[in-house]
Amino acid sequence: MTITAAFYRGDKKFDVTQIDSEAPSAGQVQIEVAYCGICGTDLHAYLGHMDARIGFERILGHEMSGVVKSVGEGVEGWAEGDRIVVRPLDHCGDCPACNRGHQHICHNLKFIGLDSQGAMQQLWNVPAHTLHRLPDGVSLRDAALIEPLAVASHDVRMAEVQPGEDVLVIGGGPIGMLVAMVARAAGGKVTISEINENRLALASRLGFDTINPRQVDAAAEILNKTGDKGADVIFEVSGVQPGVDLMTAAAATRARIVMVAIHATKPQVDLFRFFWREIRMLGARVYEPQDYDQAIASIAAGEIDADALITDIRPLDEIAEAFAALTSNPNAMKSLLQING
Amino acid sequence: MTITAAFYRGDKKFDVTQIDSEAPSAGQVQIEVAYCGICGTDLHAYLGHMDARIGFERILGHEMSGVVKSVGEGVEGWAEGDRIVVRPLDHCGDCPACNRGHQHICHNLKFIGLDSQGAMQQLWNVPAHTLHRLPDGVSLRDAALIEPLAVASHDVRMAEVQPGEDVLVIGGGPIGMLVAMVARAAGGKVTISEINENRLALASRLGFDTINPRQVDAAAEILNKTGDKGADVIFEVSGVQPGVDLMTAAAATRARIVMVAIHATKPQVDLFRFFWREIRMLGARVYEPQDYDQAIASIAAGEIDADALITDIRPLDEIAEAFAALTSNPNAMKSLLQING
Ligand SMILES: [Zn+2]
Ligand SMILES: [Zn+2]
Ligand SMILES: [Zn+2]
Ligand SMILES: [Zn+2]
Repeated sequence: MTITAAFYRGDKKFDVTQIDSEAPSAGQVQIEVAYCGICGTDLHAYLGHMDARIGFERILGHEMSGVVKSVGEGVEGWAEGDRIVVRPLDHCGDCPACNRGHQHICHNLKFIGLDSQGAMQQLWNVPAHTLHRLPDGVSLRDAALIEPLAVASHDVRMAEVQPGEDVLVIGGGPIGMLVAMVARAAGGKVTISEINENRLALASRLGFDTINPRQVDAAAEILNKTGDKGADVIFEVSGVQPGVDLMTAAAATRARIVMVAIHATKPQVDLFRFFWREIRMLGARVYEPQDYDQAIASIAAGEIDADALITDIRPLDEIAEAFAALTSNPNAMKSLLQING
Repeated sequence: MTITAAFYRGDKKFDVTQIDSEAPSAGQVQIEVAYCGICGTDLHAYLGHMDARIGFERILGHEMSGVVKSVGEGVEGWAEGDRIVVRPLDHCGDCPACNRGHQHICHNLKFIGLDSQGAMQQLWNVPAHTLHRLPDGVSLRDAALIEPLAVASHDVRMAEVQPGEDVLVIGGGPIGMLVAMVARAAGGKVTISEINENRLALASRLGFDTINPRQVDAAAEILNKTGDKGADVIFEVSGVQPGVDLMTAAAATRARIVMVAIHATKPQVDLFRFFWREIRMLGARVYEPQDYDQAIASIAAGEIDADALITDIRPLDEIAEAFAALTSNPNAMKSLLQING
């Protein structure tokens, strides 16, 4: 059977072409992909920053939803027509992390859609252990948000946000916005710090307090609104030095800082403040199965405003335009590709 | 009554002089000080780095042991002859930290012996709430180590060191050595990283594994001896950039890093590694009452080799020589002043 697939060819180029589909191997499930979101990591790849890792025969895509088409040998519990999302992590099963039950941060982790072929193709074979079932009430369109939402669910779970706590999210892009939504659903009083006025306006429309650190002293603002206490939980999602400065300056005594951003360089960190206020910081990466379950439940419960986040939807053969638009438009939030249907 | 007291007069100068003792006020206890250790913070003060905070009428000293001489109005539970140590923290009772039960990191914390008069005098009045009782088996000499030992006990308690865990202590000065002893008593397998050969030799004599990061790749060494896992718990006690580099490079997945050192500048921190391996970091400052109880119990149980740490003891009127010797001798560990007896 012939299907359409989009290959990354280097330097912002894609080939959208016809290929023969392969039957699922033993242990695999074949998915008819419905929607696939474009992630910040995909943009990195598109800009050529990951060529050494992914090469030029790569099909990207991991923020997806779809329907089971067929199952390989030995697969139980899944059947044609099941509506699913894929948790795109393949762990080694025998490394110091796997041996301690932290498979999601396996030392040899393969990220499906980067280290192996992804969801920007009509039929996609994945290991059966990566599947999560969708409840009836969740649309395939909204379900394309579950992967990034699971990142946010992981971040908030690791932070152990308690009802009534003051939460600061530094950076109001798609992940920051999802973290804010999940933290609010957990009972946190959330403020978003962001420099892009369109994102600030969106955050306000979604009911969040906002701060533009280019216009006010963000740390002073947080101290002021918390009676000099500071924020109890801080999510650093900005990935830049001013965000790292703010995370310690705005932190309450014994605050928890969650390191969500990927810092390509080593920023300067106020370690004295960590000591002085007994601040805690924890790195949080991807998700565990329970974070997927939580993300699916949040979408089903209507806690996440998908319409506010999905900026546009294009067919797969407009992949080049979709990536170009996302790169050039700082106001864009989440773009989806419609793969089938 | 006339007593001897040592006043810091600025720029490495002390006056050892006779003053009139004052009776303890309501709520205070008067202590006949036996021994007082010289702390790294005292050395900072001596070198003139804290003049703005402490002024030139200051009696230093907080690592002490002594005997109750008399009690002020309203003090219950203490009587002449009680052997004690003082937990030299005075909190405000009404700030965001105090309100949450974190009195030891009170936003308005007064450190007794820096912000008010300390123990380098023969009779010393302190609030009764700062006292901890010494068991019979503990000598007043060894008890002078309880304050720094309580710092180490706090650090190890915050890290939740478990039996069998691989522990790395970065920096083998007095606090690093005490942290190593306490972590070992908690069941940790402890390695000390240190560049001073005399301290390394002492650490070896005390039975610890050692690494000199000027001679070997310390992170590679730790990975090698832990089967590529890395250290489960890391205490950063060095306060320098290479120590901060090592703390992330040697960390296992989900490792806990305890920030013990006081970093006067903002070092560069590998935040990517925090994200990638879900590392945790927690600042740890001074101690809570239970850490004092634990430190006293450790000394009583013989878990701490006081003889190995106490480098010399001098009478109070040799305070200038004691500070000068400690400043010029990188091999010195803990110097005590004998205040009475
Ligand atoms: Zn993604
Ligand atoms: Zn693994
Ligand atoms: Zn001290
Ligand atoms: Zn207070």
